[in-house]
Amino acid sequence: MTISLKGKHILSGKQFSKAEIERVLEVGEQFREELKEKPSLDLMKGYILGTLFFEPSTRTRLSFESAMERLGGSVIGFSEASTSSTAKGETLQDTILTVCQYVDVIAMRHPQIGSADLAAEVATVPILNGGDGAGQHPTQALLDMLTIKSEKGALDGLTVALVGDLKHGRTVHALVELLKHYRTRLLFVAPSLLQMPSEISASLREYGITIEETADLSGALRQADVVYMTRIQRERFADPTQYDALKNAFILDRALVDQAKPGLTILHPLPRVNEIATDVDDFGGAAYFRQVKNGMYARMALIALVTGRI
Amino acid sequence: MTISLKGKHILSGKQFSKAEIERVLEVGEQFREELKEKPSLDLMKGYILGTLFFEPSTRTRLSFESAMERLGGSVIGFSEASTSSTAKGETLQDTILTVCQYVDVIAMRHPQIGSADLAAEVATVPILNGGDGAGQHPTQALLDMLTIKSEKGALDGLTVALVGDLKHGRTVHALVELLKHYRTRLLFVAPSLLQMPSEISASLREYGITIEETADLSGALRQADVVYMTRIQRERFADPTQYDALKNAFILDRALVDQAKPGLTILHPLPRVNEIATDVDDFGGAAYFRQVKNGMYARMALIALVTGRI
Amino acid sequence: MTISLKGKHILSGKQFSKAEIERVLEVGEQFREELKEKPSLDLMKGYILGTLFFEPSTRTRLSFESAMERLGGSVIGFSEASTSSTAKGETLQDTILTVCQYVDVIAMRHPQIGSADLAAEVATVPILNGGDGAGQHPTQALLDMLTIKSEKGALDGLTVALVGDLKHGRTVHALVELLKHYRTRLLFVAPSLLQMPSEISASLREYGITIEETADLSGALRQADVVYMTRIQRERFADPTQYDALKNAFILDRALVDQAKPGLTILHPLPRVNEIATDVDDFGGAAYFRQVKNGMYARMALIALVTGRI
Repeated sequence: MTISLKGKHILSGKQFSKAEIERVLEVGEQFREELKEKPSLDLMKGYILGTLFFEPSTRTRLSFESAMERLGGSVIGFSEASTSSTAKGETLQDTILTVCQYVDVIAMRHPQIGSADLAAEVATVPILNGGDGAGQHPTQALLDMLTIKSEKGALDGLTVALVGDLKHGRTVHALVELLKHYRTRLLFVAPSLLQMPSEISASLREYGITIEETADLSGALRQADVVYMTRIQRERFADPTQYDALKNAFILDRALVDQAKPGLTILHPLPRVNEIATDVDDFGGAAYFRQVKNGMYARMALIALVTGRI
Repeated sequence: MTISLKGKHILSGKQFSKAEIERVLEVGEQFREELKEKPSLDLMKGYILGTLFFEPSTRTRLSFESAMERLGGSVIGFSEASTSSTAKGETLQDTILTVCQYVDVIAMRHPQIGSADLAAEVATVPILNGGDGAGQHPTQALLDMLTIKSEKGALDGLTVALVGDLKHGRTVHALVELLKHYRTRLLFVAPSLLQMPSEISASLREYGITIEETADLSGALRQADVVYMTRIQRERFADPTQYDALKNAFILDRALVDQAKPGLTILHPLPRVNEIATDVDDFGGAAYFRQVKNGMYARMALIALVTGRI
Repeated sequence: MTISLKGKHILSGKQFSKAEIERVLEVGEQFREELKEKPSLDLMKGYILGTLFFEPSTRTRLSFESAMERLGGSVIGFSEASTSSTAKGETLQDTILTVCQYVDVIAMRHPQIGSADLAAEVATVPILNGGDGAGQHPTQALLDMLTIKSEKGALDGLTVALVGDLKHGRTVHALVELLKHYRTRLLFVAPSLLQMPSEISASLREYGITIEETADLSGALRQADVVYMTRIQRERFADPTQYDALKNAFILDRALVDQAKPGLTILHPLPRVNEIATDVDDFGGAAYFRQVKNGMYARMALIALVTGRI
């Protein structure tokens, strides 16, 4: 039986069964193939996506918008809260109920954790969570999976190193929720202060996932098939000297890449500041801009699936 | 003979004859029917709407934009004055003359009263006034009429209660200009300081409309077929204690609704702050989100009519 | 052989051969003719333009956006830097590489000189420079040429007066780079402090162009076939009294126009503040709003040419 996501909200990486993940990836790959022949499809012609960005995010917003336009649909929305009715004291629920009258599907980003769930409770069209503060970012995790599958050919049996601030990073938290469905070995590369929360590690181990924690990026690179770099953010540190001591521990440059296990694939959710040196950009396994493109395909898949157009 | 609005600017509720109101409602209803069969029409394919919002308004802007996209057309524009040429010292007239070179019809909102008239004097394409400060908001009034007609089946013979700040509210001022064409009984429910301006009441009475002024919401609800709630805004009061004394006088909650005349229809131009309690939202006659949707249909009708596409 | 601009970046007026200028004008004129029959074309259906405005410019942004929509394509983008990833510390190059994954062609404006060249170095889709600070603005120069050709019937043998701040004005700098390919006589009308940089004048003279420098607008108008007005900007003057002495020296009003050579064509890149009095607007040769419309046609031509769709 074909998996259907029609009418579903996409709120969290945790909501996905393995079959649902594979359905999204399959549809994303199909769209990628179809777009080799023509600039856009007609699948969503006449349909409207609402992009409600209460917090600015050019990359994610433009990814959703190009996804909808490549599907033949249209977009309305806003790119920051100051131009929205929220500024006049309207509740999030009323804003959502209003926009639901205009559009067929909503992609939203909001600074508050849980806001997408709140929106989904009242919405009459599917909600795609494009990030709710320190909460979830499930479309990022799906595009990460699509990229790993494209780059490596398969998802099973990989050693994946996750590098940087694993304590606060919502992208890595969402990604491991999807990776756990595959026979993955995870290397958590972080300073001890920024290691993966123990409840997440514990739940992954219960799921049968092998985990190693380390602060040695170079060592991890000698084992990893995929390395997922993230930023260490200054604002997470109460003590600036601590930040200064750690901030350069995880810079991936070409020298490090050249000593890594052959065939390494390098991912990053972007934007990067200095975690990946630009001399890595022309390395064949530097997949972070292909990852951006896969973001468009993954979101095309989600839009088409939740609206029931595929 | 069919009423034509081709080439006309939509500036004020006062400009409409009864026949013109009915033509707009008829076309709006027709589009609503057609959109039951498909997501969008092709009527405005290739045409462009310019949305010039010198003052932010998510609800109104997205309503115009979704209206144009549901008609198959495209949109360009801006959502706040800071990104417009006005910031460089350009006159409103020059901005309008410029945008007229790009688009087929313009929807604008501007903080200054009379700005839409000023724009219409120079424009070479039709102007739809989406609110000019404390001035007019004719598209809101038309969508209110469309909603009343949809909810009640007809416009004649209704008792309509208008509640809140009737002194400053441009939506109620525009609405009564349209309601006066029908055999309506109006209940003006406001604190005496915020009652309908006497020149408006006088002109309505001359037109043959029955008016009652009261500060008793509960009493009005026992007679009204339709209640139109609006916000009482703090900034209208020089004396904050006066505001505090009045602000909760007109809160419509489920208890009040349950004692109202059976079949009550509840409207609100939105956004609401607390004038309608959320326990009213699942009352069958709570029509304010359907009203939002009718806003899209009414604006579709206006766009199609002034461009002569219907 | 037909001139091809497929895959080229449009960065500077200097890059154009005479044959390329004529190809752009020819395609612009062709689109202008086609749009007399229908509101839009289907040429770019399914293609996406990215409008990256790191600095606000309503006129230029809406011109590019309407150009793409009149070609049947779609648009995504941002209208000011605050909503872009730049605010998170991303380099311009990474932003460009990201957006290249989503779109087929990019129009950008950026406050820093040389930014468009920087973008073009990494971009995988064509870049259209919509202004890089005090640098270049080639699409403006092309639309100016298209307007002169439309208004005068030909480009050769004209006397063109350029008026205002010729020292800092990027539009006049770009325009003379295109005009030099034609047998043009140039009148540089400016206060001596704001005359054309001598290296530009010298290079034009080497190219065989006749130049006269003057501060006498009235005298220039008795000889000119075309007058190109620009603003004198207060911020260019260290000494405000100097600005006050000069600011009204070059105001074109109807009295001056009535004493000019018959058949005068008046251009202005807009926005204007007071350099052209509004009593000039209904003069037959006042072409500055037609110039705005030609901006749309010129940009349609550039989009279609660099993407290889024509």
